[in-house]
Parts: sequence; structure tokens; C-alpha cells
Amino acid sequence: MSARAGIVVTGTEVLTGRVRDANGPWLADRLLELGVDLAHITICGDRRDDLEAQLRFMASQGVDLVITSGGLGPTADDLTVEMVARFCGRALQLDEELEGRIQAIVTSLLQRFPDIDPEALRAGSRKQALVPDGATVLEPAGTAPGVVVTAGDGPTVVVLPGPPGELQAMWPDAVETDAFKRAVAARTSYHQHTLRLFGIPESEIAETLRVAARELDGFGELEITTCLRRAEVEVVVRHEPDAQTAWTALLDLISVRHERTLFSTDGSTIDEQVAALLRGRTLALAESCTGGLLAARMTDRAGASDYFAGGVVSYSNDAKSELLGVDPAVIERHGAVSEQTAEAMAAGALERFGADTAVSITGIAGPGGGTPSKPVGTVCFCIRLADGPSVVRDVQLPGDRAAIRDRSTTVALHLLRRVLISREG
Amino acid sequence: MSARAGIVVTGTEVLTGRVRDANGPWLADRLLELGVDLAHITICGDRRDDLEAQLRFMASQGVDLVITSGGLGPTADDLTVEMVARFCGRALQLDEELEGRIQAIVTSLLQRFPDIDPEALRAGSRKQALVPDGATVLEPAGTAPGVVVTAGDGPTVVVLPGPPGELQAMWPDAVETDAFKRAVAARTSYHQHTLRLFGIPESEIAETLRVAARELDGFGELEITTCLRRAEVEVVVRHEPDAQTAWTALLDLISVRHERTLFSTDGSTIDEQVAALLRGRTLALAESCTGGLLAARMTDRAGASDYFAGGVVSYSNDAKSELLGVDPAVIERHGAVSEQTAEAMAAGALERFGADTAVSITGIAGPGGGTPSKPVGTVCFCIRLADGPSVVRDVQLPGDRAAIRDRSTTVALHLLRRVLISREG
Repeated sequence: MSARAGIVVTGTEVLTGRVRDANGPWLADRLLELGVDLAHITICGDRRDDLEAQLRFMASQGVDLVITSGGLGPTADDLTVEMVARFCGRALQLDEELEGRIQAIVTSLLQRFPDIDPEALRAGSRKQALVPDGATVLEPAGTAPGVVVTAGDGPTVVVLPGPPGELQAMWPDAVETDAFKRAVAARTSYHQHTLRLFGIPESEIAETLRVAARELDGFGELEITTCLRRAEVEVVVRHEPDAQTAWTALLDLISVRHERTLFSTDGSTIDEQVAALLRGRTLALAESCTGGLLAARMTDRAGASDYFAGGVVSYSNDAKSELLGVDPAVIERHGAVSEQTAEAMAAGALERFGADTAVSITGIAGPGGGTPSKPVGTVCFCIRLADGPSVVRDVQLPGDRAAIRDRSTTVALHLLRRVLISREG
Repeated sequence: MSARAGIVVTGTEVLTGRVRDANGPWLADRLLELGVDLAHITICGDRRDDLEAQLRFMASQGVDLVITSGGLGPTADDLTVEMVARFCGRALQLDEELEGRIQAIVTSLLQRFPDIDPEALRAGSRKQALVPDGATVLEPAGTAPGVVVTAGDGPTVVVLPGPPGELQAMWPDAVETDAFKRAVAARTSYHQHTLRLFGIPESEIAETLRVAARELDGFGELEITTCLRRAEVEVVVRHEPDAQTAWTALLDLISVRHERTLFSTDGSTIDEQVAALLRGRTLALAESCTGGLLAARMTDRAGASDYFAGGVVSYSNDAKSELLGVDPAVIERHGAVSEQTAEAMAAGALERFGADTAVSITGIAGPGGGTPSKPVGTVCFCIRLADGPSVVRDVQLPGDRAAIRDRSTTVALHLLRRVLISREG
């Protein structure tokens, strides 16, 4: 039995979907690393009764640890510390030294706002310095302190702020508290493996798993989830250390049955693989329907400047000709969305940026612009190497505008990967 | 009293954060439009006990409606229909006609995979055609059907698939079922307003709300949440129709106190406002540290081609000179991240794309590359109009690489908005 945890995300802006929760997923990863089993995530608005009900639900499920995010701000709708104190049966006390530290932080942060109201600031700092009896204070990374507090014989509750940067910065301190360590003492070390496949329907993996269930000893000790994600199939397998043999047998089975589509067995993403393959090369992009999404994706990670020269977002036909040197006659004859135009865009990117590797994308992301012969979702790609072949593909992608744009970047990365691997091999 | 609802999101890939949940937020919006009060969102993995516990939690909270997403696929880890049937005390029956319809869909969808296993497909279709007694079937938008079923004197449960496109396509049918209509019969029509401010700390809004609480009649009937979002402060106010006077008074107070920073009172986003201001103009972009994110943001919406010519992602210094005509001596003298380089990039974009409006961004997104005089977070912007002034700004942004890149796009849009408004006014 490993320790079990729950995450309570608070905030009407998260419940109603105006803000996307980044803390649940981040905390889930940290718990996995610690060998703590995450059972539930719950989200509620800034309402006393709903927050209290969720804390009680977690306790009723026998979790050892509850982590809350949000509701620590200076405004009156921020209720978390007050409700956690009540849940744990503790009174709130003003920590005057903490109040002073918070006040010092906000005063220095807000220097660039000259006409700020000092009384408003002080009221906020005082509210944020109220701490449940017996709690351990987590020093603020922004302006809001967190607390770690235990509910009698119930779970330990770690109260963290909502802004992901602050929550993440304060997490190491939370993990080091005695109350946290006691709560997770029963943890197990899980192993987790991620496989990724591209160009395969999910039903094929389902069948492979049915075969595995019939044929492999110890299959029942593997916790397996499969999902479609950004046009790839992701298979995650989680197990305790003594199920290692079953995992190895499953990996062999999948590797044999899906040799052509299985591209990652070590958890690496297509982005990471392409970045590694680009070492020593210079990449340039020419994008139309994706409007810069591929360039943004290529530059997500630090260090992209080692191989990424840049890109042109050629949304208009004029831009395709002026910036990339695409012959207007090619666009006229074959259309802006055509293999010929894609090829000319890649050639232009290669030349204009002085690169040795170029990728172009031109397509119809919709909702308008489709025709019977080129419906919405038609996307043309070209991968062009200065020192090798150029590959052109014409693909039909499902989904709405956002899905087509996003999937186009995934398809482009897989095409580029294959070209770079065949060049190396 | 309005009808209350809960959303249960299932899927280990969502619980563990490998896939971001898009269904909770989307369903939250639909419930708001229907006047149904959303109390809780819960997320669990593909485990029988945890899913059952969450359904029971929703019932214990007295919700009238539970909506589930996910867990309807052909794989064995998809458990939702089975667990909902048990929760509602209903047996599962094979719906043979439905099985035939599912089988027809998957057969046609998978034509492009010639070597697929037909027995695997049939097993999946049969599993997906198991329906709780007395449930209303929602026809599949992809391959998985949904169901609507009521738990004796408990809530009505709407079971929808996980892929957002399918869930959204099937929602109108769910709303039209008798069981759904009965569950939400007590709904109230809420009014919701969104205010957005830029260039103000959250504590100033907190103080304004404290003043409002002291001075405005009926303030207690307004449900108010504030949050920081992509470098803006968003204030959402929700109330029943008879609190209209209190809302109007609050809007007046905020408008007076925050005249310079309040840029939206009608729910419009900065993206929408800039798109409207660009009508009749032609925009070109030159991006460095944002790597195409601003171009991608500008082309999120359909119809962007009316005013968006394109952009250059000039990641390397060579690209700045070759593609945008930035004088290498300017980069040499002032640095790639400087107001002078930003100005030259905007001038180049204006000229190369034949545009009348240009925006440039060059900065240090980190984690490396900072210096004492230009630390990580230093970002320079230039807005340049062919027929007007050019505005240059040098800003210091907080946060990590992703936050700096994202906030840079927000700052650029606000600078562009101000320039276009001052030109019009």
C-alpha cells in the first residue's frame, strides 16, 4: 500500500474555465516522483460550503495528503486558509512577523506603481498573515505564504498559492516539513514508462493489449492507460518494482506488433527527438495555415538557437512571393495549398535563411476556404535538405481549426524526423 | 434556487496531467448559458472505486445533474458506462442495432489502414454498445455513443466521450432529452459580466472591492471573482436579474477608479479589440524571443487573413539582417535586444510585407542569455505605422521562459491597441 493523495484546486476562475489549471498536472508529476498515489483532483469555486465539502470528501476517501492550490490572495474571495483551518479544527492567529515580511515584499514589488493606496496593501498583508494554530508556514515565493497543517487523525493538508510559479517554488519547502514526511511515509516506488506511436488508430493498441492480457504472465499487475494526444497514441504503463518482467514482455510484444509506428520507448517526445536530430544543422521554416505555431513549438525549449535560424509566416500570397520567392505562377496554376507551392516555400526558406534544413506547411485550417477537391483539413508539407532529398506530403487532417493547426505541427515534426533519420542511416 | 450540476472528468491521462482537460471548461460555459449552477468538477483515473466515489460525492452534494466525460473507448480501461449503470442501479444490455451502427462507422473510418484486425474492431464495437436499462442513447459523433440515465431519486447522469470534438457535437442531443430537461427545470437566468484591466496590480482591485462593499447597496448579491490572467486582471461579476442596480453601481465605481487601465467592459478580449482596430489595415510582424507566438495568436481566429500579411521569426542575427534588412552595425552597437534593433525590425517588416502596420518583439526569454544590464525578462517592442508615429518600449517581465514569451504577446497587443486608438481618436 502506498500513500494516497488528493488535490483540491480552488478558484471560480478555474471552475468556470476562464483560467486553465496548470497546478493539478504539475503536482501529479511531483507525487508520482515521490511514489505517492494520486486518487482524486477536485475543483471548486470560491465558496465556503463547496470547498469544505471537497476537503471532507478527500478525508472520506482515506487520503493521507491533501494539497490545495489557490485562494491565498488579498481579496475577500480568497478563503482557503480559513476553510482549511476550520476543517482541521484550528483557530487562525495573526503572525505579525510574517505580516511584516509580506508587507516588505509587496512594497518593493509595487514601486513602479507610484499612486498606490498604502492602506489597501496593509489590509491585504494582514489577511495573508493569518495562520492556523500549529501550522508550519511556507515562506512566500510571490506575496502569499502557504501552510502545512494536519487535521487530528485526518490527512495532512498542504496549502499552496494559485500562481504556478509560486506554487512550484514553494513545493520543496512543503516536502521538507515533518507533517508532509509523516503523511507520505507509506510510499512505494512506482516505475512508469511511456510509449508513443504515430500513424495508428487506438483500436490497434486495444487489440494488442487484449492479446497481452491473454498471453502474458503478470499482465494484471501493470496499470495501463492509452490515449490519443496531439495526433499520437500515448501508452503509459505503471507498475511496482516486482512486475518488471511483465513490463519487459509487454514492451517486446508492442515493439514487434507496432514496429513501424512506435517511435518512442524512453519517454522522449517527438519535439525532443527532432531537436537531437537537428544537432549540427540549421533549420528554417515557412508556414502558412499554422501561422507560426511550428516556429513557436520549435522555440519552446531553451537552446533552440543552436539549430533554429528562423521562419517566415507567409499568410498572404504576396508574402509567399516577396519573402520566400515563390513564383506567383506556381500559386496561380496549382493553388496556395498545393504540393508545388509547399515545395517552393521550403526552397525559399532554405535559401533566404542560408539554412540546410527547411520545413514548409500550407493548408486549409477552416472553417472557411474549403473546396470539393481541397476540403478543410487539406494540408501540404515539404521537408527539404540542402544536402539531400526533398519530401512532399499531402495529408487530410480531421478536427476544427485549432486541431488542424496543432496536428499539422505534429505531422511536420514526424516527417522531418523520418527524413533526418533516413539521411543518418 | 437554481439547478446545481457537477462534472466528473475520467481518465488516468487527465488525472496525471498528460492530457489537459478541455471538457470541464467547455461544459462550464454551457451550464452557465443554461442558468445551471456548476458546483464541483472532479477528476479521477480509470479506476472503478475512485469513479464510484466521485459519483456518490456528487449525489451527496445534492446536485441535480452530473455530466461525465471520457472512458467510453474500446479499451478495457474505459469503465464509465459500467460504473454509471451501477451507480444508477441499472443493468447493462447489448443494443444490437447500436452495435451495427458503431461497426459501420469504424469500418469506414479505418479504410486507410489496410492491415487492420477486424476481430479487434468488432470486440470494441460490442463493448461500446452496452447501454444501461432505461437510458437514452446519444448517437456517436466519433465512434462512442453517450447515454443519459437517471439514478432513482438521485441526479440525472449525462455520459459523454472524452474527445472534445465528439463531446461538443453530442451535447445538443443531451440537452434535448427529457431526463436532462427535468433535471435543470429549476434553473435561474444568471447575468455575467467580465471586466479586463491591464497594467495594474491585483491589490488595487481588491481595495476597490472593499470600498464597494462599504458603500454600495446590494453589493452582497454580486458574486465577484478576480484573477491575474496572461498579465491582465480579469474581474467577473455574476448575479441574478434583480441585482442589476448593484452591478451598475459597481461598474461605475470601477470605471472611475481605474479609468486608465480598464480596457474591456463588454467581455471583449484584447485579441478581439485589436482585430477590430486592424480592419482596413495590413499587419506584419517581426518576432525574435516569442518565436512565432504572436503570429500564431493573431491567426487563432478565422478571418485573420483580412488584415494579417505575415511575419518573420528572426531568431538568429543573420535572419534579422537578411530577412528584415536590419543593419548588422545596429545589432553590433546596441545588441540584438535593444530599442534600436526593435525599431529596425519593425521598419523591415513594414517594408518587406508592404504592410501599413508592424509590430516587433526582441527580448531575453531565458533561462540563459541574461546580463546585469539586460537581465532575463528584458523585452523590447516597436509598433510602427506607415502613416503615423512609431512607438518603442523597453519592458521588464517576470516569470519563466514560457511566461515571458506569453506575456510579451499580451504587452505587444496592448501597445498596438493604444497606438491604433490614438491614431483613430
